[in-house]
Amino acid sequence: MLILLTNDDGIQAPGLNVLRKTLSEIAEIVVVAPDRERSATGHGITVYYPIRVDEFCFIDGKERGWVVDGTPADSVKLAICALLDRPPDLVVSGINRGPNLGTDVLYSGTVSAALEGTVLGVPSLAVSLDTYESQADYSYAAAFTRELCEYLLKEGLSPDILLNINVPALPPHKIAGVKFTKLGIRRYDDVFTARKDPRGKTYFWLAGEVVDEEQDEDTDVMAVKNRFVSITPLHFDLTNYRFLRLMREKWKDFAIGLRGYEEQTGQAGKG
Amino acid sequence: MLILLTNDDGIQAPGLNVLRKTLSEIAEIVVVAPDRERSATGHGITVYYPIRVDEFCFIDGKERGWVVDGTPADSVKLAICALLDRPPDLVVSGINRGPNLGTDVLYSGTVSAALEGTVLGVPSLAVSLDTYESQADYSYAAAFTRELCEYLLKEGLSPDILLNINVPALPPHKIAGVKFTKLGIRRYDDVFTARKDPRGKTYFWLAGEVVDEEQDEDTDVMAVKNRFVSITPLHFDLTNYRFLRLMREKWKDFAIGLRGYEEQTGQAGKG
Repeated sequence: MLILLTNDDGIQAPGLNVLRKTLSEIAEIVVVAPDRERSATGHGITVYYPIRVDEFCFIDGKERGWVVDGTPADSVKLAICALLDRPPDLVVSGINRGPNLGTDVLYSGTVSAALEGTVLGVPSLAVSLDTYESQADYSYAAAFTRELCEYLLKEGLSPDILLNINVPALPPHKIAGVKFTKLGIRRYDDVFTARKDPRGKTYFWLAGEVVDEEQDEDTDVMAVKNRFVSITPLHFDLTNYRFLRLMREKWKDFAIGLRGYEEQTGQAGKG
Repeated sequence: MLILLTNDDGIQAPGLNVLRKTLSEIAEIVVVAPDRERSATGHGITVYYPIRVDEFCFIDGKERGWVVDGTPADSVKLAICALLDRPPDLVVSGINRGPNLGTDVLYSGTVSAALEGTVLGVPSLAVSLDTYESQADYSYAAAFTRELCEYLLKEGLSPDILLNINVPALPPHKIAGVKFTKLGIRRYDDVFTARKDPRGKTYFWLAGEVVDEEQDEDTDVMAVKNRFVSITPLHFDLTNYRFLRLMREKWKDFAIGLRGYEEQTGQAGKG
């Protein structure tokens, strides 16, 4: 099994390196990751600048590595489309320092790397640890990911698989279990702070604390709060099918009533 | 009605300005947009740097404007959370130069601005014109958007509304009508080009042509190809509910069989 490992905290980040060592027990690992922290890059890709890539040697392992001056999504796209001789069996992104829960996954570089894997037809996991501590212990989250990879390999890897995993930052005996969850709600208070620079001009910092919001028990937010490892299956089809059905039923008068091309719509009806 | 207008081509882009003039016929317009082209930024937000904002005066209109040195999602977040005295009734992002269809919406700054509007509880539209021509004619797409806004206003604006609109780059009489669509597939050939710099080091350009792929008739890709305006309702819940049901049924042995915390999982079962 070949696993492509990436992240959005940069190739030197401890979360990635603990995972590299742990996953090398069960698979061949190739690391293709950004050169530095790229948090909150969302699903950005680099189209207006060239992307630099350098080979990277790990001092404590024999895994192959490339370091990319691009986003997490760039790294996965480059790895699969240009750097690797054969497609990986699995993309694993992480372990991220800090959770990626609920609506926040939209902004997450960690999740977007996994999303890119699935867009390119490779089953993918994103793994995050629920703490911003620089001295965090990633060993349980890494061992959990290894178990999950072994399970997936045994069950058969379908390209459908896109899993977002959040692990509480607790010692193993305090973890309550695993929950399969849906995305919850993450809302922030006091989102921007305005300041003046020395020349009197205003600038803004994005800040804000998470607001503790009431939500369903089966969300990722609640699972992690209750000391469970949360696994949320994602997909990249953003179509709102429920609303689409509603539009097709109720918006007919809009579709046929638009001023200026009634006649053409009529034609289209015949076509 | 107050409309917040933004885009990812920058505040000076013709697509935004044609739309600003056209929508000012039916609503008060405030423009908050990036200072320069930010295509393919995905849903990136700026967290590690402060964001600069300057007031912006349009030479041909009285609309208020702010220019932001951030992403499209930054612009919408800042506008709604910090700059505007009251929340807008509608966020409109565009008119983008170039289509935003199928899987490509994941990378689209135009769509991510609309997504951010909906995340913050404001109904939102993303509008794109299916051409990369610098001399493109945005007038039909702008008139269409105005009609749609009037329709939405009449029907009542629910915060559910997140519409991705793609308009063929054709004169009005050649447009076949409107279609309500799901997202299609966009695949690219030859995705990266490797080159050597003058010092012999490799760099990569993201390139590639769209591959004409067979797909359902009711996709956005097919609608625009067949000269229809495509309207795709989106949502920001990436949860794959189908797969979640499957996991809850079939992955029980994984959840309870994980080495190392069987006992704790048992506890959780009782909780």
